[in-house]
Amino acid sequence: MTTIQDVARHAAVSVSTVSNVLNGRGDRMRPATLARVEAAIATLQFRPSKSAQQLKTGQTPLLGLLVPSMANPMYGYIAREVETFAQERFGYRLLIGSTYRDAAKEAAFFEDLRAHGVRHVIVISSLAEERHLDSAVARGMNVMSYDRRAAPGRPSAVGHVTPDNFEAARLATGHLIAKGHTRLAFATVAGMTMSRSDKIEGFFAAADAAGLRASAKVLDGGPLNEYGDSVIAEVGRATGLQLANDSRRATGIVALNDLMALGLMAGLREGGRHVPQDVSVVGIDGLFLAALSDPMLTTVQLPIRDMARAMVEQVMQAGAGAEALARERVFSEVRLIERESVGPPPRPARSSPMTKARTAKK
Amino acid sequence: MTTIQDVARHAAVSVSTVSNVLNGRGDRMRPATLARVEAAIATLQFRPSKSAQQLKTGQTPLLGLLVPSMANPMYGYIAREVETFAQERFGYRLLIGSTYRDAAKEAAFFEDLRAHGVRHVIVISSLAEERHLDSAVARGMNVMSYDRRAAPGRPSAVGHVTPDNFEAARLATGHLIAKGHTRLAFATVAGMTMSRSDKIEGFFAAADAAGLRASAKVLDGGPLNEYGDSVIAEVGRATGLQLANDSRRATGIVALNDLMALGLMAGLREGGRHVPQDVSVVGIDGLFLAALSDPMLTTVQLPIRDMARAMVEQVMQAGAGAEALARERVFSEVRLIERESVGPPPRPARSSPMTKARTAKK
Repeated sequence: MTTIQDVARHAAVSVSTVSNVLNGRGDRMRPATLARVEAAIATLQFRPSKSAQQLKTGQTPLLGLLVPSMANPMYGYIAREVETFAQERFGYRLLIGSTYRDAAKEAAFFEDLRAHGVRHVIVISSLAEERHLDSAVARGMNVMSYDRRAAPGRPSAVGHVTPDNFEAARLATGHLIAKGHTRLAFATVAGMTMSRSDKIEGFFAAADAAGLRASAKVLDGGPLNEYGDSVIAEVGRATGLQLANDSRRATGIVALNDLMALGLMAGLREGGRHVPQDVSVVGIDGLFLAALSDPMLTTVQLPIRDMARAMVEQVMQAGAGAEALARERVFSEVRLIERESVGPPPRPARSSPMTKARTAKK
Repeated sequence: MTTIQDVARHAAVSVSTVSNVLNGRGDRMRPATLARVEAAIATLQFRPSKSAQQLKTGQTPLLGLLVPSMANPMYGYIAREVETFAQERFGYRLLIGSTYRDAAKEAAFFEDLRAHGVRHVIVISSLAEERHLDSAVARGMNVMSYDRRAAPGRPSAVGHVTPDNFEAARLATGHLIAKGHTRLAFATVAGMTMSRSDKIEGFFAAADAAGLRASAKVLDGGPLNEYGDSVIAEVGRATGLQLANDSRRATGIVALNDLMALGLMAGLREGGRHVPQDVSVVGIDGLFLAALSDPMLTTVQLPIRDMARAMVEQVMQAGAGAEALARERVFSEVRLIERESVGPPPRPARSSPMTKARTAKK
């Protein structure tokens, strides 16, 4: 079995340097040294012994992840990446809980985790208010928040990692515009989170840049029910059905996320409309389900793996507290995956009684 | 705020009777009494105070749920039902972990949970071997196992709840036969679990009963990769693609579960085949995603909510150990949800060069 001494020898560093890397203190050394140790760990397939770690640090090998709803496949996707990295790199196990975007539930969950010796927690919340996270940090926990930026002008002891939601929506909208769409809509649910408003801003920025602001609008599909985010597909379906029956509907739709986009397509189809012949749809996330639908969903892939690694690295940093954690990282490496759900807008003949007049003008 | 005294008064029972119900000892009273207390709890919307419970029992308000992979939406679905009931009825929070159907990981997770004061664990594993569960029980944990039956002839201290997988597959297969299909297949993945072999037996039983045993076969799509069950859709897709190119393919397919069925449909489509015109597909589970696909997936709905409640009730039973837990409940209330993915088999003209000869015979 590979030992920490083997890794130190291979990387030509001291054992304590390797130990620093293993305990999330890689920021205390030069990047080249860190890279060498990481390469040695990978080459020798070194797995730190968990019980040895525990004896040394007195901490539990559990990492907490609080998500809005475990019934939403997107959080399963993120959880998988977080867990893989937490196990491989730190020998930590992951425990997940659902909070339903409820601040009281979130706060209570933090208390429970703390009472059970869990010191590192990643929370996916997007709640506007995160004072309860600050107070968890004040009590010695390391807390990372996903999918939201720090509130402007307010220093936070909580670390933040988020995809560039503005850019993701801008990219999706730009793709529709490039295909010729002029009547655009952003389909969302009721309730504004920071990530949602960033997406809406990105949507309007793309429309603005193309001079299409006047014909771009937000479709609010209504509130989610008690079960949290998994029903977002049903909200999408209802929105799709409504769109299908709207003779003045937008032809190019950006959905809040893939699950909503899949629901939207189901609703459009139920209402007798074809994707992409009648309406084009773009999702955001890059969920594996997006490649299973018919038509396969064009979507903006978020850098889930990179973000998961960054969150784990940061939440595992030794020396918790404001200085170590108060960082914000926005991941801009979003990319469009073109599949089948976007085409050119329908010719006026399909949707307008003015066809002849318009055609005559051309 | 409603108190336990209010509930006792409303149900005309003693406070200790209500306490027994709250602490999972409902089996100690007459069913009519239990029903009256439950009705009073619901009517008065009584929520037991968690800290009071904790003081009294000295136990943590955490329930553990170990699943093969959190990236599989089916486990998110079960988790949601388990969590809802555990919170409403017992004031317990749920913590989930992934085990990737690995016995060593499962056993280590039990150790960690025990070390952190978690005494009640539900495990979805279907591993053939469950000695590690027995040993957790021996150390004072309450353990429920989902989706497998107790090993025949071996007394177990672990409780078991499972859907009637035999019946689910028999029902799905019978539906295809009723629609006229004679060339049948059961699409599965490599690796035999108890629930998988039960489904295969149900599939063959239906084929047998219709005299179609000779033209019924199992398609093994190969192993799942490191990420566990979420890639089952990709295995389904590969199986579908292979089927699409097989001129002697079955026309009626029962898939191991909904996720595999959705992948299967994507693969068939990729290979130029239409569902249900060329091939009919039935899933098993009743996942919300099955209603989003095009065509919408016909599936066998498992009684997830009832099973989740039964598991929580049983795992929360006071007085852990062999007698209290060694129960096995098989839920047979499976039902077919007819949607769009099943039709009559294709006419011979579409798949055979012998069309004229056959038609002439008719």
